[in-house]
Amino acid sequence: MRVAGRAWRPIWLEADGRTVGIIDQTLLPHRFETATLSTMAAAAHAIRTMQVRGAPLIGATAAYGVALAMAGDPADAALDRALDVLAATRPTAVNLRWALDRMGRVLRPLAPAERTAAAYAEAAALVEEDVRANAAIGRHGLELVRGLAAARPGAPLRILTHCNAGWLATCDWGTALAPVYMAHDAGIPLHVWVDETRPRNQGAALTAWELLQHGVPHTVVADNAGGHLMQRGLVDLCIVGADRVTAAGDVANKIGTYLKALAARDSGVPFHVAVPSSTIDWTISDGIADIPIEERPAAEVTRVQGRTADGQVVSVQVTPDGSPAANPAFDVTPARLVDRLITEAGTCAATAEGLRALFPGRR
Amino acid sequence: MRVAGRAWRPIWLEADGRTVGIIDQTLLPHRFETATLSTMAAAAHAIRTMQVRGAPLIGATAAYGVALAMAGDPADAALDRALDVLAATRPTAVNLRWALDRMGRVLRPLAPAERTAAAYAEAAALVEEDVRANAAIGRHGLELVRGLAAARPGAPLRILTHCNAGWLATCDWGTALAPVYMAHDAGIPLHVWVDETRPRNQGAALTAWELLQHGVPHTVVADNAGGHLMQRGLVDLCIVGADRVTAAGDVANKIGTYLKALAARDSGVPFHVAVPSSTIDWTISDGIADIPIEERPAAEVTRVQGRTADGQVVSVQVTPDGSPAANPAFDVTPARLVDRLITEAGTCAATAEGLRALFPGRR
Repeated sequence: MRVAGRAWRPIWLEADGRTVGIIDQTLLPHRFETATLSTMAAAAHAIRTMQVRGAPLIGATAAYGVALAMAGDPADAALDRALDVLAATRPTAVNLRWALDRMGRVLRPLAPAERTAAAYAEAAALVEEDVRANAAIGRHGLELVRGLAAARPGAPLRILTHCNAGWLATCDWGTALAPVYMAHDAGIPLHVWVDETRPRNQGAALTAWELLQHGVPHTVVADNAGGHLMQRGLVDLCIVGADRVTAAGDVANKIGTYLKALAARDSGVPFHVAVPSSTIDWTISDGIADIPIEERPAAEVTRVQGRTADGQVVSVQVTPDGSPAANPAFDVTPARLVDRLITEAGTCAATAEGLRALFPGRR
Repeated sequence: MRVAGRAWRPIWLEADGRTVGIIDQTLLPHRFETATLSTMAAAAHAIRTMQVRGAPLIGATAAYGVALAMAGDPADAALDRALDVLAATRPTAVNLRWALDRMGRVLRPLAPAERTAAAYAEAAALVEEDVRANAAIGRHGLELVRGLAAARPGAPLRILTHCNAGWLATCDWGTALAPVYMAHDAGIPLHVWVDETRPRNQGAALTAWELLQHGVPHTVVADNAGGHLMQRGLVDLCIVGADRVTAAGDVANKIGTYLKALAARDSGVPFHVAVPSSTIDWTISDGIADIPIEERPAAEVTRVQGRTADGQVVSVQVTPDGSPAANPAFDVTPARLVDRLITEAGTCAATAEGLRALFPGRR
């Protein structure tokens, strides 16, 4: 997608064919800076500190992290260590494990001398597949948007989203925002309600910034506001992404998603979840029992990062000294609250039957 | 209640018998400072800028604002003007209108020369009634807390609250927190989940500070976390305050309350609302149709106030330049999602019948 008129992706192989470029998302929306990852440890650090975040982008960064490890040392022990270190960076997103399993499956049978080139090729293939999957999600989601927009001739369709499931969360296009971008580009009038998404403010910082760069009309609201907006008939549709979807359709996504799904159901607003199939964990069915929820540092709650009047990006404390904080980073929205899953293969009900029909080879 | 071991109320008549002291709540939890209101305009400004906030405290400040106006000019025109100016400061809390109606009723029949003394006496009476009402709310709420705590012998009762309905929101004790303080003082082990309450962070800034000063165990969480905590069985009870309750039991309270009520219902957690009867608007029944929702400045969403590493209290921008924000300050929780109303007269179901039985003289 475009930043100040120039095309960018959030991850790319540098011209040296070895190091990996990323947009440092911890500085947005205040500063647009890139960083270069030269080692597996740097890739793990970028995932852990959320310089890159979003389930699909975490998977892509981990794949390139394996390639960087192989470029340093392609022996079996180094491969095993890279897979272990990268797998431990974030516990909730299943794309991370999916990408690492795939890299391991491709690389283990090869002689060490062949592994580096194969790793870079596989990481690049994984990135391009993600871009294609997201574009397909965008096309399938566009049909849902088109149907709802037809019911509001002459008025913008009002979409609420939580966190950032835009192009910055993926290798391009985004998941939840792919239909938004495609609808906007197709001339369908839209307005996006952007949840701030405390504690890390990915909505206010990343989604608002993406939509602003692309010219999509939007308004930032506190996470608390979504229920009120839906109750007053000001939201036509919710679309969010996910970090893991069970084989039965339960959805782990950024903390607070479940509250918006409850409000959507209470007000009769459609609630859709956009995911590439790499986000589906076919090994589990019960999201509440089986998905580990990452507990992140309390400082993300007790402090807020922002820009001062003189342009510095600083972190300020919002709680009293001595008050502890808890920071569960994700929650699980039960499948019963999800209307449709939007995947690269089409849309389906958030049920085991719906998912099996769309992906007959998987189980 | 106590601050650093000394008893304080959030509003008091100064020793000169004319000016009014307040705790400036916009600086908490970082700085504890008081301010002196010498004119009606200063009282209106304190309400508008939220140096004082919370429905009962807004009412008390408005009552003293009328007294300050009378001290300056006790003529009919000045009385009418004071009632108008103060009524326009905040639209949602009904205590404001209730307090001003009461002051007008007492003062209008009097000769101007008698009005000043009568206004101060009435404002003081209103404050003392609020303190007594909140203490009674605390005692009635304590019985509910005791019942739930008995079901968890040896383990702390886990209470979630939203915004600040503590002593800082009232003339003393608080509404939602009055039962918490009384239970804590009675030796019932408690733990309070404190919603941050964006955009103004009254939970992180005020509720956490109050609980810390009083020694009540608590943990601050992002507003997004409550649904997850309830779903995982980590919340035994929700108690919130209100800015207006309709005669049918609909509850207008800080934006985000409705989302917590939905989550409580989905997980079977009791959801109680603590209010003095001055918060009940007997003239309306349909909260969604009839309660005006204050739209506050967008800057409260686009910026966050906090303390820098070197101790300065500053405001930082969290959104990109050019992204608009909306800031509805309250939402309406339908009566069907409220388990009990806790008032100074006892507890009742959130229904017209429940309220009528508790307040047979009102309609």
